[in-house]
Amino acid sequence: MQQTDGRFSDFHALIPAGGVGSRLWPLSRGARPKFLYDFLGSGRTMIQATFDRLAAFAGNGHVAVMTGAAHAAAVAAQLPELDGRNLFVEPVGRDSTAAIALATAILARRHGCDVVVGSFAADHVIRDEETFRECVAQAVAAARAGYVATIGIAATRPSTAFGYIRQGRALGGEVPDAPDARMVRAFVEKPDSATAQAYLMTGEYRWNAGMFVMRADVLLDTLARLRPRIHETVTAIAAIWDDDADHRAAMMERLWPGVEKIAFDYAVAEPLAAEGGVAVVPGGFGWDDIGDFNSVAALVPSADRYNNKIIGDPGRVVCLDSAGNVVAPAGGAGRTIALLGADDLVVVDTPDALLVAPRARSQEVKRMVAALAARGYDAIL
Amino acid sequence: MQQTDGRFSDFHALIPAGGVGSRLWPLSRGARPKFLYDFLGSGRTMIQATFDRLAAFAGNGHVAVMTGAAHAAAVAAQLPELDGRNLFVEPVGRDSTAAIALATAILARRHGCDVVVGSFAADHVIRDEETFRECVAQAVAAARAGYVATIGIAATRPSTAFGYIRQGRALGGEVPDAPDARMVRAFVEKPDSATAQAYLMTGEYRWNAGMFVMRADVLLDTLARLRPRIHETVTAIAAIWDDDADHRAAMMERLWPGVEKIAFDYAVAEPLAAEGGVAVVPGGFGWDDIGDFNSVAALVPSADRYNNKIIGDPGRVVCLDSAGNVVAPAGGAGRTIALLGADDLVVVDTPDALLVAPRARSQEVKRMVAALAARGYDAIL
Repeated sequence: MQQTDGRFSDFHALIPAGGVGSRLWPLSRGARPKFLYDFLGSGRTMIQATFDRLAAFAGNGHVAVMTGAAHAAAVAAQLPELDGRNLFVEPVGRDSTAAIALATAILARRHGCDVVVGSFAADHVIRDEETFRECVAQAVAAARAGYVATIGIAATRPSTAFGYIRQGRALGGEVPDAPDARMVRAFVEKPDSATAQAYLMTGEYRWNAGMFVMRADVLLDTLARLRPRIHETVTAIAAIWDDDADHRAAMMERLWPGVEKIAFDYAVAEPLAAEGGVAVVPGGFGWDDIGDFNSVAALVPSADRYNNKIIGDPGRVVCLDSAGNVVAPAGGAGRTIALLGADDLVVVDTPDALLVAPRARSQEVKRMVAALAARGYDAIL
Repeated sequence: MQQTDGRFSDFHALIPAGGVGSRLWPLSRGARPKFLYDFLGSGRTMIQATFDRLAAFAGNGHVAVMTGAAHAAAVAAQLPELDGRNLFVEPVGRDSTAAIALATAILARRHGCDVVVGSFAADHVIRDEETFRECVAQAVAAARAGYVATIGIAATRPSTAFGYIRQGRALGGEVPDAPDARMVRAFVEKPDSATAQAYLMTGEYRWNAGMFVMRADVLLDTLARLRPRIHETVTAIAAIWDDDADHRAAMMERLWPGVEKIAFDYAVAEPLAAEGGVAVVPGGFGWDDIGDFNSVAALVPSADRYNNKIIGDPGRVVCLDSAGNVVAPAGGAGRTIALLGADDLVVVDTPDALLVAPRARSQEVKRMVAALAARGYDAIL
């Protein structure tokens, strides 16, 4: 996977691997978040698939991961191809702005201020990798021209689970290597159902998959204007990052907990879009977010003609008069799940916890995790 | 529990403990049938509770158990008060007629032909034991007078899960110690829903709980007329039962597998009722059959105000927006079951098998067991 594409020579991919994914409990746990799990039975975990996809065109040495101290060892074990210097570890999570900013500042010091950094979540599924690569190439071109570039996913349904990007005029001839890019008029938050329907009708809205590609100096200058405290801290840390591990650790321990927690969309993308600084490349490569068991189910082929989806060994599940269920037999070897007359349920079996819920309540699994925490079931969270 | 009641001095109770109870899978297994399980969390298993109830008036020494070779050790372990000589073991199950007939023939040889034998299933729940005792006393009196006496349970709903007893005229002054006894006009099989409703309206029908009380000579003479082959075999075996364990085992191995398999209702109760030989004592003592998870649920108090029933440790079950479920957390220590937005389900968790089904399908769990057997899942059956 070292065949780099000339269009990406100045490009570095960043995978921020944070967030527990509590809507995927009990498969996803605090100690083993969803990006470490192979939900689709592909043989590769979410973060491995993400690494493979990016390394295929950026090159192994041009992929970095930012993750929490609790998961650094697991990430390193799952990604032996990842250069150890490109595994950036946070002692505590400070949301996406700080994570992307610090990684960008480190890469800028190593490779120059005009390096292009692209940030891609560790838990997305992309079907057509060739089309994805072409979209990233256009985003990189727009980034070189000074834009913060994002990729706007073609909305295939009026989803209320995603934020949206409202696109504006085409960039036109301004960036020849980004012929499909358009200006972003605004980023909007997850809509209600009627609003999502209206968005879909206009044809102006695309899903925001949180993919951002930008020149390091563009991001750092923007931060210096809009979030000077974050800029100051990440610059100070990046300056000593590669000097000495003890020094770095001491700096992180001292400065990181005080960094503002704010999402990249709020801190950078939205205000910069209002200034005309954000471009969007339309992405039609078959994308999905592994957000909850319903979305996992959409990506797993049916195990039978009754549309039952098995996340794991189908030999461990026996369905009788049962249709449309999502079943994860992860309770251990030899353990069998028998469904009789059960329809449209999520049944997730793990060695210490079992979840049963209707598929329609998939988004609310997060509430169950909160309820378990409130009742003292921390050992299984 | 040795305080015997004078009215029962010639009475011996028999508990035929057979049948897997596959509608209660995966709690009930071939190797550990339902009568060995404490479904109600009372601290006593079904067979222990049955033994206690009968020994309380018959005396420990007047209670016998007939069970299969596979379960003899478990029965003996659960019933240390049971006289070892009263544990009758079949190498293979030959249905209730043979089991009751053999036990009766053995007891007749030991205690005389006019001993009264009462057979009571190992998996029934009886709420008012005092009333139960009074009913058995009347049945014993009717048995002494030459009837095969049964106890007809007051039907509280139009159940399709039980057979019915159609009662006839009162015995009147014929048996002074059985003032409530009536003649049985007929035994009828499990009805459909409309028929069950019609039965309930007439007031003539009672549930058949398979309780039979009779003088040994009455049963053996009836069998000699109606099922001479069964009579011949059990008489021959009973004649040597107490002689020598090896001789007994050899006889059982040789003769028992050839004995006709037929239910007591068909072989004895129905034809004898047609001849006017069966009496019924009305029983209003709060009876239930632990037939399926729905019937277990009816007997377990709710764990919360949403009518969720927990068979086991309530601390292992967390319900959120969930009502009317029957949950058995028997999957092992530390294992938690989380129900989110789930209503009216049966969730039975054991170390090697998990069942999920709507409560309304409880009777069909038997079909699931058959399906698992057909697919080769014998290890969990």
